Amino acid sequence: MRVTITGAAGFLGRKVAGRLALEGKLGAREITAMTLFDLVPPKAPEGARFPVTCLAGDIADPAHTARLAERDTGVVFHLAAVVSAQAEADFDLGWRVNLDGTRAVLEACRRAGSRPRVVFTSSVASFSGGQQAVVGDTTRPVPGNSYGAQKAAGELLVHDYSRKGFIDGVSMRLPTVVVRPGRPNRAASSFASSILREPFLGEEAALPVPEDFALWIASPRAATDWLIHAAAMDTRALGLDRGINPPGLTVTVREMLEVLRSVGGHDAMRLISRVDDPEVAAIVGTWPARFDHARALALGFRTHEGLEAVVRAFLEDDLAETRAMRG
Amino acid sequence: MRVTITGAAGFLGRKVAGRLALEGKLGAREITAMTLFDLVPPKAPEGARFPVTCLAGDIADPAHTARLAERDTGVVFHLAAVVSAQAEADFDLGWRVNLDGTRAVLEACRRAGSRPRVVFTSSVASFSGGQQAVVGDTTRPVPGNSYGAQKAAGELLVHDYSRKGFIDGVSMRLPTVVVRPGRPNRAASSFASSILREPFLGEEAALPVPEDFALWIASPRAATDWLIHAAAMDTRALGLDRGINPPGLTVTVREMLEVLRSVGGHDAMRLISRVDDPEVAAIVGTWPARFDHARALALGFRTHEGLEAVVRAFLEDDLAETRAMRG
Repeated sequence: MRVTITGAAGFLGRKVAGRLALEGKLGAREITAMTLFDLVPPKAPEGARFPVTCLAGDIADPAHTARLAERDTGVVFHLAAVVSAQAEADFDLGWRVNLDGTRAVLEACRRAGSRPRVVFTSSVASFSGGQQAVVGDTTRPVPGNSYGAQKAAGELLVHDYSRKGFIDGVSMRLPTVVVRPGRPNRAASSFASSILREPFLGEEAALPVPEDFALWIASPRAATDWLIHAAAMDTRALGLDRGINPPGLTVTVREMLEVLRSVGGHDAMRLISRVDDPEVAAIVGTWPARFDHARALALGFRTHEGLEAVVRAFLEDDLAETRAMRG
Repeated sequence: MRVTITGAAGFLGRKVAGRLALEGKLGAREITAMTLFDLVPPKAPEGARFPVTCLAGDIADPAHTARLAERDTGVVFHLAAVVSAQAEADFDLGWRVNLDGTRAVLEACRRAGSRPRVVFTSSVASFSGGQQAVVGDTTRPVPGNSYGAQKAAGELLVHDYSRKGFIDGVSMRLPTVVVRPGRPNRAASSFASSILREPFLGEEAALPVPEDFALWIASPRAATDWLIHAAAMDTRALGLDRGINPPGLTVTVREMLEVLRSVGGHDAMRLISRVDDPEVAAIVGTWPARFDHARALALGFRTHEGLEAVVRAFLEDDLAETRAMRG
């Protein structure tokens, strides 16, 4: 079968593509072809033993998305999105890419007629309630930002296209991914990776929230594992409800700084400075940090490793590439 | 200020327009003009002491919706929609009218720049869980039909446009409206009105669900009162959450038939026959019947009258017009 990845030039898309190239299959099904799509041309993963088609285009333009699903398409990872702070700054772009783009991808799948598994990345940002909230599997999204509203609306599309039998969809509400490789980006949660990444590159990192601020996070390894499990799992266990809160890790900034000190030492710690950023604090301040993961665990999504393992995995998997990227 | 009503040719639109024509104001604000919009040309309400502009057009076409909000627009009742069984039968039409149409109306409001109050009719159909469920104010929509998914997605638009300050929106999740005047329609819940309307016109009515089946209903009088309260209330009390489960009435089909017998007698009862309709039963079977209304009551939405009062109000308000409509 063919596997498609949108947002394939992004770090999560590259990790999923790399894993699939290495394994050559998804669950019990052999991968025979791959289509990668992004705004800029994505690179084919190293070592793939199947043909890889790399496409660049506009995810919200049906003329571009028509090629995302073909008769042999078995799985689509729909990761392409405008991130939170950017969607908040550009209302029209956010709704266009994150809602219209998702709809265009689902329409392409429907037209292909192969009823592909679609793994859609929704987000913790679809919830609010902030530090006080505890989110369960039946908690209603009341987003505190446009990105979250767009992701929650995208979930409803994935839900209804699945119920009608046009696709076989799973929406994964991803936590803040930490440690995100590469550069700081326009996600409001960018700081959470910066404080555990920049010091290892000898760079300073700004901390816009207090030390007792808690976050719900996922490592790139855990997020990749969950997305691949969502692509291979038996969806009959989901029933009508296609959305999943995966088993993320709840950590405070204080715990993050303790791990930074323990792995990076005092030199690393000295590169962190507390800098107020009301715009970022307003967005991340509404995101809840505490979740009940019972359903995800029952559905076979793996539990999360501890925070020190997360940081050591960043050094092992991503530090060299991140350093090289910066020249 | 100007008041706009979309879906103004529908029975709820006509009732809201009629009430506003009678009262001449909304809360403390005087109505100085009204715009009515529907697929077919709506009729101006009798006795209006302000100019009424009647427009026909396609709600999902921005060229048509541009005229729905002007600089003096203070309130928009957005009632236009494709109903549940029709949205289930025509997937594309449902998403186009119920989602794209809502977005076009909100864009028109945003461009007008008057930050109007927008009262959006969402629906019980956005929930599932059926007869076993009890729905609270934080219950997540997991729709069992496309109509409900479209309404839940529309709520997210109303929510985000409100948060950004483009509009001041309120989404009312209306129960099944009983007794709906006029003819049976393509709403899956059409039977619930038919069994309390058709016998009073000497017509037969089919009952597709068992007598112990429970529904969450609202009378046209209660629904109209709630919509007008939503248009006039102080929205600061809503906080981030713009959606409201109003104080509907939970009734069983058995209770409905008892009221039919008590008001209409045995002649009325003889016109009801139990007829299986798996398509209708599948849609309404997922709708919950039991709600917690605490938030709506705290926000000043009035409690619901009893079922016999609902039927007597139909005879008083709507029987003559319904009979006349049928020639």
